[in-house]
Amino acid sequence: MAFEDDAAALIGAAHVLTGADMAAYATDSTGTYVSDPLCVLRPGTTDEVSALLRLANDSATPVVPVSGNTGVSGGTFAAGAAMLSLERLNRIRDIRDAARIAVVEAGVIVETLQNAAAERGLLFPVSFGAQGSARIGGILSTNAGGSNVLRYGNTRAQVLGVEVVLADGRVMDLMTDLHKDNSGYDLRDLVIGAEGTLGIITAAVVKLVPAPARHATAILALRDLPAALTLLGRLQAASAGAVEAFEYMPRSYVTRHLEIAEGARAPFDASYDVNVLVELGGPAELAETFETELESAFESGEILDAVIAQSEAQRREMWTRREAAAEVAFSKAPVVATDIALPLDRVDSFFPAVRTALAEIDADFEDTSVAHLGDGNIHYVVYPTRDEPGLKDRLMQTVEKIATDMGGTFSAEHGVGLSKRPAMTRHKDPVALEVMRAIKVALDPKGILNPGKVIPD
Amino acid sequence: MAFEDDAAALIGAAHVLTGADMAAYATDSTGTYVSDPLCVLRPGTTDEVSALLRLANDSATPVVPVSGNTGVSGGTFAAGAAMLSLERLNRIRDIRDAARIAVVEAGVIVETLQNAAAERGLLFPVSFGAQGSARIGGILSTNAGGSNVLRYGNTRAQVLGVEVVLADGRVMDLMTDLHKDNSGYDLRDLVIGAEGTLGIITAAVVKLVPAPARHATAILALRDLPAALTLLGRLQAASAGAVEAFEYMPRSYVTRHLEIAEGARAPFDASYDVNVLVELGGPAELAETFETELESAFESGEILDAVIAQSEAQRREMWTRREAAAEVAFSKAPVVATDIALPLDRVDSFFPAVRTALAEIDADFEDTSVAHLGDGNIHYVVYPTRDEPGLKDRLMQTVEKIATDMGGTFSAEHGVGLSKRPAMTRHKDPVALEVMRAIKVALDPKGILNPGKVIPD
Ligand SMILES: Cc1cc2nc3c(=O)[nH]c(=O)nc-3n(C[C@H](O)[C@H](O)[C@H](O)COP(=O)(O)OP(=O)(O)OC[C@H]3O[C@@H](n4cnc5c(N)ncnc54)[C@H](O)[C@@H]3O)c2cc1C
Ligand SMILES: Cc1cc2nc3c(=O)[nH]c(=O)nc-3n(C[C@H](O)[C@H](O)[C@H](O)COP(=O)(O)OP(=O)(O)OC[C@H]3O[C@@H](n4cnc5c(N)ncnc54)[C@H](O)[C@@H]3O)c2cc1C
Repeated sequence: MAFEDDAAALIGAAHVLTGADMAAYATDSTGTYVSDPLCVLRPGTTDEVSALLRLANDSATPVVPVSGNTGVSGGTFAAGAAMLSLERLNRIRDIRDAARIAVVEAGVIVETLQNAAAERGLLFPVSFGAQGSARIGGILSTNAGGSNVLRYGNTRAQVLGVEVVLADGRVMDLMTDLHKDNSGYDLRDLVIGAEGTLGIITAAVVKLVPAPARHATAILALRDLPAALTLLGRLQAASAGAVEAFEYMPRSYVTRHLEIAEGARAPFDASYDVNVLVELGGPAELAETFETELESAFESGEILDAVIAQSEAQRREMWTRREAAAEVAFSKAPVVATDIALPLDRVDSFFPAVRTALAEIDADFEDTSVAHLGDGNIHYVVYPTRDEPGLKDRLMQTVEKIATDMGGTFSAEHGVGLSKRPAMTRHKDPVALEVMRAIKVALDPKGILNPGKVIPD
Repeated sequence: MAFEDDAAALIGAAHVLTGADMAAYATDSTGTYVSDPLCVLRPGTTDEVSALLRLANDSATPVVPVSGNTGVSGGTFAAGAAMLSLERLNRIRDIRDAARIAVVEAGVIVETLQNAAAERGLLFPVSFGAQGSARIGGILSTNAGGSNVLRYGNTRAQVLGVEVVLADGRVMDLMTDLHKDNSGYDLRDLVIGAEGTLGIITAAVVKLVPAPARHATAILALRDLPAALTLLGRLQAASAGAVEAFEYMPRSYVTRHLEIAEGARAPFDASYDVNVLVELGGPAELAETFETELESAFESGEILDAVIAQSEAQRREMWTRREAAAEVAFSKAPVVATDIALPLDRVDSFFPAVRTALAEIDADFEDTSVAHLGDGNIHYVVYPTRDEPGLKDRLMQTVEKIATDMGGTFSAEHGVGLSKRPAMTRHKDPVALEVMRAIKVALDPKGILNPGKVIPD
């Protein structure tokens, strides 16, 4: 009997998709990776996930988990594999206000959890452009970053417990809402960020934090990047760490956004090199602290121009510009998109260094970027003059080499998936790669879980 | 040639101790575990650690790493094994004020790092009674908690990078000071808390935080535990999370401390059931917020008595009482010491439940405790009426069962070592145990690293 039939016997034929029904799953959010899966499985419970993996393991059928399919590293590419979608495991099992935790299934959409928390005056702080589609299983598996990492940490920092189905169908129950638990190896953090190669996450216990009473949001034009980082430091000190987002957009980004986004308006009358969307969250008094700091930075010449959001609509407009990053980056082709992070004190020297090096390869390249500047995380985007894979590879490698030479990483928040596997070979400690392989073999001896991802051969 | 001679050839005979020279290493800090090691190795560099492990692996010689030897779970018990002390790897390699990080070797004493940070207006926030002896390698390997977890998280939360020597001598370089790096599995967190069973930590990059401008410290007598937790919530809200410590001491603890500690003074004129040492850290204004909150809790009857520290000496006296926890606990024998954590909303019901259950086993038992109350972490100590191993085991098991039944853990911060291995069998998810075993075998196939610890057979 074919795998699909066996699977249908376990979870019902209606939940095993084949042929044209798989179209929505087979293409990733960037359009770069289009695959031809064996089938798409839509289990409804952890037990069904377990039964399906037992079947897959017994028949050595590769399985690619998918949650919201918004990943940008090719992690859900599934040629010939069974895609296992978590979308039907979509219950918020529990929210305990007093304990400030939520128990959620892997298919819960990030925004759904954000809204449920907001109704209780709480905040689920993982926030990024794709939050309306990305799901809990995906953000845990990629350890997603986003705009609020500066204040709250990445996804990993929000997680207390996980439930994981292993390659052979065993269910590992690490669900807990304790903040302190030293009982053996930290398997939770091993599974978080493993991009579906070590197990399938079916549920999690996540922390919620008190929602800030109000936000103070502004778009700033700054003299240069060092001025921006100085201001960030001062805002952090003055607000006791209440800066929630500090997002850099260069002139090229703002210009391009105006060109492509319908109804978009320029942030300022003039056009500037260094634009930063800054947001603080906290008590009402914060707005005053914020304005005082901005005024003094204006007087000292660090800030050239500033617009403070006076309404939720103005705040939304500022965020819409920032969250258009994917459209802006991919509005032009050919494109080389990166996701590097640098120590903060190297960010300023990165740009001239990388541009000099890129110009030697492709003299008339263009670039843009958008950065979670407070984390040193830059999505640096290069537009080569010619669409040649070899050229694109060389440009990508040049960016990543300069970042890693400066003590940075080639993979800050989007994960490795398929697209950054070659960079793993080039830049990751070889012993660390050997250890990853050993762990992969120990937990998934037949290599059925998301094969060919994360770890280079 | 004997192992010791081979080792001496690698690191010098002066650094291979045998016989009586090993006495200081062979007994742990509780005096419970006394072993007879093969030898004590004192390498001076990562390369020497690597060479020693290659030798040990080739000759299948068990190796037990030791840093400060202050652990309380028998983790350094080393019968017949080579103890490998990190004490000579004791350099602070670098402190970068602007990046707020320190690069430290595993043998650096916690207090030495605290002092070096303080000189720069920075804080290394891991803090507990044994900080004058415990070392970086030990606190990382046990993921030590302590009194400031409430605000800063446990040791794991302070670590950005690690350098680890694997069982066969390979050096895994995960040293980074990036806050964001999604390049493959989280091997750092796998090694942290593994108690020397997966590799030997030789160095780390740790975060430093701005030192609070001042502390507001008090000892409070509270109506009951729920009142204490309510006050904690209000203090957190009023200070935007500036509560650094919230340490519970019952009447039995305060009384016993007065009996055993020379020169100790009673915290209050009267004696109370629920005493809490509370400390906030932040700007000068904090003191006022603190007093306002205490006054209103006094008026509402939650606080029965309070002494606010008026000088550093008074603050020290309050902390000295708290940090005598080990002396207080072990001042009487026989003793059963536990390290449980509970969800905060179960703390109050734990005590009557556990006392009822214990009385059925040993009607006249006595108890005391000390708790990092803000984390739900209780060091509950039972004094049986008779010194029978079987009785002590039953009492221990009863405490741990009640804690885990309430959604808690039997091992909050001290680690598993030898003493909590039986509890791992009883309470840890069996699949999680299988996964731990598989990882152990994958990374240390000959089982030379701290054999017999953490994972039950
Ligand atoms: C407009 C836009 C903006 C974005 N902004 C950001 C940003 O700011 N920061 C950021 O970090 N990312 C960002 N991303 C990338 C992406 O949204 C994140 O990686 C997100 O976490 C993916 O979630 P998902 O549910 O869509 O996962 P998917 O795309 O479905 O899967 C991602 C990876 O995880 C695996 N996986 C999925 N579910 C599971 C599971 N239950 N168990 C095990 N493995 C699983 C998949 O196999 C795949 O390897 C952005 C993407 C877009 C399109
Ligand atoms: C008075 C007192 C108070 C304490 N208070 C607390 C507290 O509040 N919170 C808390 O969490 N703990 C507390 N402890 C327990 C103890 O101090 C901690 O566990 C501490 O982290 C141990 O550090 P160490 O350097 O002494 O480690 P050691 O005792 O030397 O070793 C601990 C474990 O780690 C392993 N290990 C040591 N070094 C390495 C290395 N470099 N690489 C790999 N493995 C290694 C050892 O094999 C052992 O299993 C207290 C202890 C005492 C005596």
